[in-house]
Amino acid sequence: MNTDNYYIGIDGGGTHCRARLEDANGNLLGIGLSGSANVMRDLNTAKESIVSACQQACQEALTNAKLAVPLNQLVVGAGLAGANVPSAHIAISNWHHPFKGFSVVSDLHAACLGAHEGDAGAVIICGTGSSGTRYLDGKFEDFGGHGFFIGDIASGAWLGLNAVQHTLKVLDGLYPSNGLSQAVCHQLECFDVMSMVQEVEDYMPKDYARLAPVVVNQVYHNQPDASEIFDIGCRYLQRLASQLLAGHEHHLALIGGLSEIFAPHFSAEVQARIVPCRYSPEQGAIFHVQQAYGIQETGK
Amino acid sequence: MNTDNYYIGIDGGGTHCRARLEDANGNLLGIGLSGSANVMRDLNTAKESIVSACQQACQEALTNAKLAVPLNQLVVGAGLAGANVPSAHIAISNWHHPFKGFSVVSDLHAACLGAHEGDAGAVIICGTGSSGTRYLDGKFEDFGGHGFFIGDIASGAWLGLNAVQHTLKVLDGLYPSNGLSQAVCHQLECFDVMSMVQEVEDYMPKDYARLAPVVVNQVYHNQPDASEIFDIGCRYLQRLASQLLAGHEHHLALIGGLSEIFAPHFSAEVQARIVPCRYSPEQGAIFHVQQAYGIQETGK
Repeated sequence: MNTDNYYIGIDGGGTHCRARLEDANGNLLGIGLSGSANVMRDLNTAKESIVSACQQACQEALTNAKLAVPLNQLVVGAGLAGANVPSAHIAISNWHHPFKGFSVVSDLHAACLGAHEGDAGAVIICGTGSSGTRYLDGKFEDFGGHGFFIGDIASGAWLGLNAVQHTLKVLDGLYPSNGLSQAVCHQLECFDVMSMVQEVEDYMPKDYARLAPVVVNQVYHNQPDASEIFDIGCRYLQRLASQLLAGHEHHLALIGGLSEIFAPHFSAEVQARIVPCRYSPEQGAIFHVQQAYGIQETGK
Repeated sequence: MNTDNYYIGIDGGGTHCRARLEDANGNLLGIGLSGSANVMRDLNTAKESIVSACQQACQEALTNAKLAVPLNQLVVGAGLAGANVPSAHIAISNWHHPFKGFSVVSDLHAACLGAHEGDAGAVIICGTGSSGTRYLDGKFEDFGGHGFFIGDIASGAWLGLNAVQHTLKVLDGLYPSNGLSQAVCHQLECFDVMSMVQEVEDYMPKDYARLAPVVVNQVYHNQPDASEIFDIGCRYLQRLASQLLAGHEHHLALIGGLSEIFAPHFSAEVQARIVPCRYSPEQGAIFHVQQAYGIQETGK
């Protein structure tokens, strides 16, 4: 039996859980993809998603490289949505897991470790949700986030919600019909108030986020109402970026489809400090677990 | 046994259910107050609240006027939150109720019938929620509302939510501390991001609405951030009022503590058409049930 260490990095969010299996030299052996892994929202589902994604990655290693890696030989680092909440972090950390080793950070922290290869730096994530963190002197400091509804400003869910609110005002006759309201009605196939209200009744953040491309497309066509919403989000992310960069010389990496769309509108000072991500969030989760177990691999 | 008709008008909202017992001449015999009566949110609780409020009103009639009115002698008109939703309206209308007669409208419609004594007219309600309706040619037309989160703009819950969102940005260091953020922190006794997020985690609209007086107080002190939120709400209600009054000569009545606060900021055209409420929502519910049963009482 093989006695080397094998690592899996997990990037687990509200919709998907990605796994990346590496050997001790950082060579990719397999990947896996499963469902939700938000440990605050549903702990058991998160555990199932993690195991399922790991099993898939191991199966791929077996198929492609004829390499059998049992779960109990895996050292797993997991960056998980919701793991920033202390009670959720404790709950998942107490898991009687099937691995050789297991350590959890928030998905945001794993992404930051990956983006800057474990060095000091900051990240903004803007996808379904939005938030930022910076890693300085071995410590994380988080800003923004706080979840859809009270926070996550400028996120896909936030853009979509604002587009729905705007469209309801139009359908109520309070504002004239316009490019944004027409695009939202078309996308949701709802053309009156009652059907729109019923359509969104049980919407989750990911459902609202499906409207983000509609808003962005209208911004590209200079539609004024979409641009007004977009500008509010943009001003927020600009402030978030300034706060993440304040007082130090580190860089900022951007993650998530929407952050790339907002970035050209940031100030020159912020733009000058933006760098591409060096590694993925899954790789960041592997850096984390290697740090946590005091392992110094030579692969990178 | 007394064979006259006795009427109860119910005004049932998300927090309270009010009952008003009248004889056929419109004389007040007793009142009752119980808990939530939102038929969309919880049908059984709404039924219990209605019965409880009616029993209290009858008990008061017995105590004060030595008049025993059994439930099965009551003709009950109920204006209930959530009754604008067709499925909820059907569910409560199918109730095997203990009364002689029972008919339901939305709380908004009952308020409008009360405000204009059953004549044509419009109302804006702005309290915990916000919405408007107009009654023309025997038909109601609703605008706004749609519930907290996607609608209810300018409502107490909306003001409170916006104040919390603003305060979280301040606590994140993205904006300087100010009168509004300090007042919100003081009111909720939360002085950092984590405690604020935990405090509001399970907030319902009525919980956010408790912050409305804090926002209004800051507006009176010309605090810019509070004024910015207030102005967005004010512009929305101005549009709602214009829409409710468009194309006809009827009047507008205002209901709910916040509408009186916004009203001085409406346009002169809208202000010229504002009238006081002639009767209460409970009395409006009695007008409704008398209409529904084709009863012409002479009391009013």
